[in-house]
Amino acid sequence: MSSETKGLTLVFTGSGKGKTTAALGMALRAWGQGMKVLIIQFIKGGWKYGELKAAEKLGPGFEMRQMGEGFIKDAAGEGLEAHRAAAQKALAEARQAVREPGYDLVILDEINYALHYRLVELADVLEMIRSKPPGLHLVLTGRNAAPEVVELADLVTEMKEIKHPYSSGVKAQKGIEY
Amino acid sequence: MSSETKGLTLVFTGSGKGKTTAALGMALRAWGQGMKVLIIQFIKGGWKYGELKAAEKLGPGFEMRQMGEGFIKDAAGEGLEAHRAAAQKALAEARQAVREPGYDLVILDEINYALHYRLVELADVLEMIRSKPPGLHLVLTGRNAAPEVVELADLVTEMKEIKHPYSSGVKAQKGIEY
Repeated sequence: MSSETKGLTLVFTGSGKGKTTAALGMALRAWGQGMKVLIIQFIKGGWKYGELKAAEKLGPGFEMRQMGEGFIKDAAGEGLEAHRAAAQKALAEARQAVREPGYDLVILDEINYALHYRLVELADVLEMIRSKPPGLHLVLTGRNAAPEVVELADLVTEMKEIKHPYSSGVKAQKGIEY
Repeated sequence: MSSETKGLTLVFTGSGKGKTTAALGMALRAWGQGMKVLIIQFIKGGWKYGELKAAEKLGPGFEMRQMGEGFIKDAAGEGLEAHRAAAQKALAEARQAVREPGYDLVILDEINYALHYRLVELADVLEMIRSKPPGLHLVLTGRNAAPEVVELADLVTEMKEIKHPYSSGVKAQKGIEY
């Protein structure tokens, strides 16, 4: 394999805005190049309507699957089993998508978050990264990326929050946050 | 003006990957919501073909203008005047686009870089931000964002490079970098 055709493993982590958004931008760029893109959302957030509508409009070659439950409110309590089941299902689909030929870019949105809450096993995620085909680009987003994932990745960016409007009472804005 | 309809000023800065990419993702999300998007590139980079092709395919409502020269090789030397002229023209178009109704999201890609190299005047950029219509979202990307720009912004994320593949000899990848 020449270095020109190497599929990269990228991680967008940190507490700042722009992780999922950067993955989306990457998806758009790849789609522009005629590549086949799959986005699997491990955590379903209410503000994803803009993406979902865009994916619909972009049509074939830009596929988005909402697999997860919403964000976890109580990490010890009720409903965690439902979160775990949804995340496990998402990981199974991710592993299959990575394994089978067809996609050029697979984005696992908020998988780091799912890992952090132990909804999926670290060993399974590492195995998936290690066994990905040489040409496939893989993107993993979410806060608190595991050091072992960072170690395996080619490119890691930490999105660091310098300033956030919600702290000054501004509400989430259509087209920007969702 | 209620806080619900506030147009935000966002800054993506730092030396890590994902600044332009996050702005692109934001553009896609807004486009998905039926908003009108304009991207003005202050610095023209050879790796932007993916975006340009995507913008072409997305059609009306997603407009991209390449205004700048390439990256500056010699900040003191030859060719700086051409860079300055291109950046000034880009800023004039940006100010016009911000002033006139029609766009919901205006992205000024690498304007922080242009400011850093004094290709445009800080006072002009600050005036543009201050005079933007309440409903318009404005995104400014590029390294070394000026403190005065950060001060005016609602949301600022620093993309921090944790790991970069070029340091291990991997070349820029189609669909990922360009």
